Amino acid sequence: MSRFFSSKYQALTPYTPGEQPKDLKYIKLNTNESPFPPSKRAQKLAKDAAKRLELYPDPECRELTKKLADTLGVQEDEVLLTNGSDEILNFAFMAYCDSEHPAAFADITYGFYSVFAQINNVPYVEIPLTEDFRINVNAYLGIGKTIFIANPNAPTGISLKKAEIEEILKSNPDNIVVIDEAYVDFGGDSCVSLINKYDNLLVTQTFSKSRSMAGARLGFGVGNKELIRDLNTIKYSTNPYNINRMTMAAGLGVLMDNDYTVKNCKTIIENREFTRCELKKLGFTILPSDTNFVFAKSDKISGGELYQKLKENGILVRHFDKERICEYNRITIGTKKQMQALISCIKSILEDK
Amino acid sequence: MSRFFSSKYQALTPYTPGEQPKDLKYIKLNTNESPFPPSKRAQKLAKDAAKRLELYPDPECRELTKKLADTLGVQEDEVLLTNGSDEILNFAFMAYCDSEHPAAFADITYGFYSVFAQINNVPYVEIPLTEDFRINVNAYLGIGKTIFIANPNAPTGISLKKAEIEEILKSNPDNIVVIDEAYVDFGGDSCVSLINKYDNLLVTQTFSKSRSMAGARLGFGVGNKELIRDLNTIKYSTNPYNINRMTMAAGLGVLMDNDYTVKNCKTIIENREFTRCELKKLGFTILPSDTNFVFAKSDKISGGELYQKLKENGILVRHFDKERICEYNRITIGTKKQMQALISCIKSILEDK
Repeated sequence: MSRFFSSKYQALTPYTPGEQPKDLKYIKLNTNESPFPPSKRAQKLAKDAAKRLELYPDPECRELTKKLADTLGVQEDEVLLTNGSDEILNFAFMAYCDSEHPAAFADITYGFYSVFAQINNVPYVEIPLTEDFRINVNAYLGIGKTIFIANPNAPTGISLKKAEIEEILKSNPDNIVVIDEAYVDFGGDSCVSLINKYDNLLVTQTFSKSRSMAGARLGFGVGNKELIRDLNTIKYSTNPYNINRMTMAAGLGVLMDNDYTVKNCKTIIENREFTRCELKKLGFTILPSDTNFVFAKSDKISGGELYQKLKENGILVRHFDKERICEYNRITIGTKKQMQALISCIKSILEDK
Repeated sequence: MSRFFSSKYQALTPYTPGEQPKDLKYIKLNTNESPFPPSKRAQKLAKDAAKRLELYPDPECRELTKKLADTLGVQEDEVLLTNGSDEILNFAFMAYCDSEHPAAFADITYGFYSVFAQINNVPYVEIPLTEDFRINVNAYLGIGKTIFIANPNAPTGISLKKAEIEEILKSNPDNIVVIDEAYVDFGGDSCVSLINKYDNLLVTQTFSKSRSMAGARLGFGVGNKELIRDLNTIKYSTNPYNINRMTMAAGLGVLMDNDYTVKNCKTIIENREFTRCELKKLGFTILPSDTNFVFAKSDKISGGELYQKLKENGILVRHFDKERICEYNRITIGTKKQMQALISCIKSILEDK
């Protein structure tokens, strides 16, 4: 770092995104992308938008916000669109955490939460998952901190029931509870319908996974209109034109083609069950998953070695070199063909042992 | 605001962007956009990128960074691309300002600087422009603060010479000086060539103005590699995938078609001189401009009234209801036809007085 860098960031360790190889030679099962392109209409609208790039986008994203609110069954002033869901999560850390409102999240969860806490100079506690890698609901009851829960959780894939989230919301009436639903469309139980029941609930979602738009960067938060007003204050104080015209147009197209998203999710769930069965046959331990990935380990090969061997064979998965989970790999669910290739590759790796 | 909103933002007043009317019935001369679409190649590459949105973008923007570095005549590790130049400016406030390093900028300049200072809890001083609306260079010499200078300045349009910036850089060796060159391509004197002479220099630019990409959101910072490393630390701690695939592709196309950008800038400069002459004939006072806008006032009509009357007649310009400049309007330079329409509209407004 330079001699000018503010001392408040001296100890900051940035987030490390999953590998994004420039060439496409890999079967890419490492960053939970969709194997399906965005809908034809999304592509068409994005292409049309590319013709008018000389004009600023609508900072209020009115058309897309209206369509999204309708889709979710909420009001327009209960939604805020952002440049990926990382942006809305950072906004939530900015708006609702400070030295008097520390953050609380699981020890094994989206690795960015601790980075957001650090960059915003927010104290935080990491609450251990249970032995079987579940969110320990009791540990959050009445904790009096700003809570961040990925539901379903990553990289485990396990989800909480809505009733469990409600217990946490009720017992922390003076603290915001952020439910990060990046993976909810693959079998989770969304809390969006609760935003008017609990004024302390903020739900975040993304267009990156079920909606095939990781490359377009679009996420959003849903909460009561006072929370959305807070978050807009942050947006208009950092980057008012945070979403470009093409992404806005693509997002609209995706929402117009919601059947396509639903169909893709169904396929991913089928492929997940196929993958889980096949991995079980090979002796893997697999956590129950409500997401587009599985978290799996084998007694026959270490997590690190399996990751490395798969990579050598042209298949990228994600390995976290972290206590408690280093024996596991997080494997994104792709097409049936990709998963068949994965399974037969793992078979030969294990046979070679 | 909600009862949960962090007390540190209680006094925050967000930035107000220029009007972005949804319908296109206005001649839009209010937010300094280019009247020309992005180059054909930029459109083509963006459209191609819209087909592969299911995959995350390259967080390092390697291809675009290389092309940009080549275009600027700097090294790849001396550039950082961001989601519009607002993002790199906010990163600079985060990285280089704190309670021990207050910010300093002009009283009349880009209105976002004071918002960035506020949201980052940074003390700041506003240094008055001279009587004739110039940056008061002497006031910055040895000031010992992190300096932000828009060069050319907005909304005045007036620029400093490189030698004047160098005086400021030399006299503040222990403080970062950020030169915001959003408008430099319309006649300003860029400081990019100085980044290796002064380790305290950060230059920011945007694709929004001369490069016709306001709707795509692309900006960047140029500085020595240690500064870029600092700013990358901020990026990877807030939003690593800050630039989407389509914008990245469009940016590459724009840089490949640099002749088109140069030609458009030439046309804008010609239209600016035409507009200046015509406004002078109508008795306007116009500040000297090195940008794609003019800042002008008339003794015959107040700034607010002219803004309002133009709007009623379908022409949007930008009026700032602020001491010292409320008699002025900032008028973006569009096509010759648009400027002719503006002039004849102003003529009739003045005749009706």
